[in-house]
Amino acid sequence: MNEFVFSEIETGYECSFTKEITMEMEQAFREITGDVNPLHQDDDYAVSVGEGKFRQHVSFGMLTASLLSTVAGVYMPGRYSLIHSIDKISFKKPVFAGDVLTVSSVVESKQEDLKLLQLKVTIKNQDQKCVAKAGMKVLVLK
Amino acid sequence: MNEFVFSEIETGYECSFTKEITMEMEQAFREITGDVNPLHQDDDYAVSVGEGKFRQHVSFGMLTASLLSTVAGVYMPGRYSLIHSIDKISFKKPVFAGDVLTVSSVVESKQEDLKLLQLKVTIKNQDQKCVAKAGMKVLVLK
Repeated sequence: MNEFVFSEIETGYECSFTKEITMEMEQAFREITGDVNPLHQDDDYAVSVGEGKFRQHVSFGMLTASLLSTVAGVYMPGRYSLIHSIDKISFKKPVFAGDVLTVSSVVESKQEDLKLLQLKVTIKNQDQKCVAKAGMKVLVLK
Repeated sequence: MNEFVFSEIETGYECSFTKEITMEMEQAFREITGDVNPLHQDDDYAVSVGEGKFRQHVSFGMLTASLLSTVAGVYMPGRYSLIHSIDKISFKKPVFAGDVLTVSSVVESKQEDLKLLQLKVTIKNQDQKCVAKAGMKVLVLK
């Protein structure tokens, strides 16, 4: 876990990590949220309702989005992090169980008075296709 | 699970549900994301770093945000849902394990050509304090 304090962080700093999305993660997410929608578990339903756009059940968008927690809490800034707000999350392509996501963040700007970082986050799959983009504000507690 | 199709949904439609945030949910979220930040598990650390603002470890903001999946996938529109994008999530107050959250959504507008719903979501705790607000666009598949 990184332990950046606010004064150490510079605009342009980048971090990234990779994470495989598994059916076990999907099941855990389903239990947490109670989102039992068949699109996220029933392959036949997903293929049918997606009119060929989905090859199997589609992973939860908000499961992919949950990796924003990891960005802030482990990488940038790490230990002294508290997410202030999410500006935007755009889901660009479906994510499927078995996909290996690379989550990359860059510090776009710093707001000195409130110790806020503005991060831009890009999430790509193993084919280098962008599956999601997000902007977030993170408070640095130290 | 609701099964609204796009043509049935009207601006102003409201849905809500309640969900208790438990330490088991936090542990599952930690395992999914790998966000092992001590703010989200170590009570003493949270009290100390929060300078008295936190009475115990703070729940993951993105765990609260994950309930947006439930809003779309189970309630509005339910079965034929696919989250298109999140416009904004503002975390207003900390959430703690044991809090019982009420998640309320309202259809703000419909975009007929793309079958998109614009939802406004408000999340309150058991003391009727707003802990998070969000806006999201949901594609209705039918």
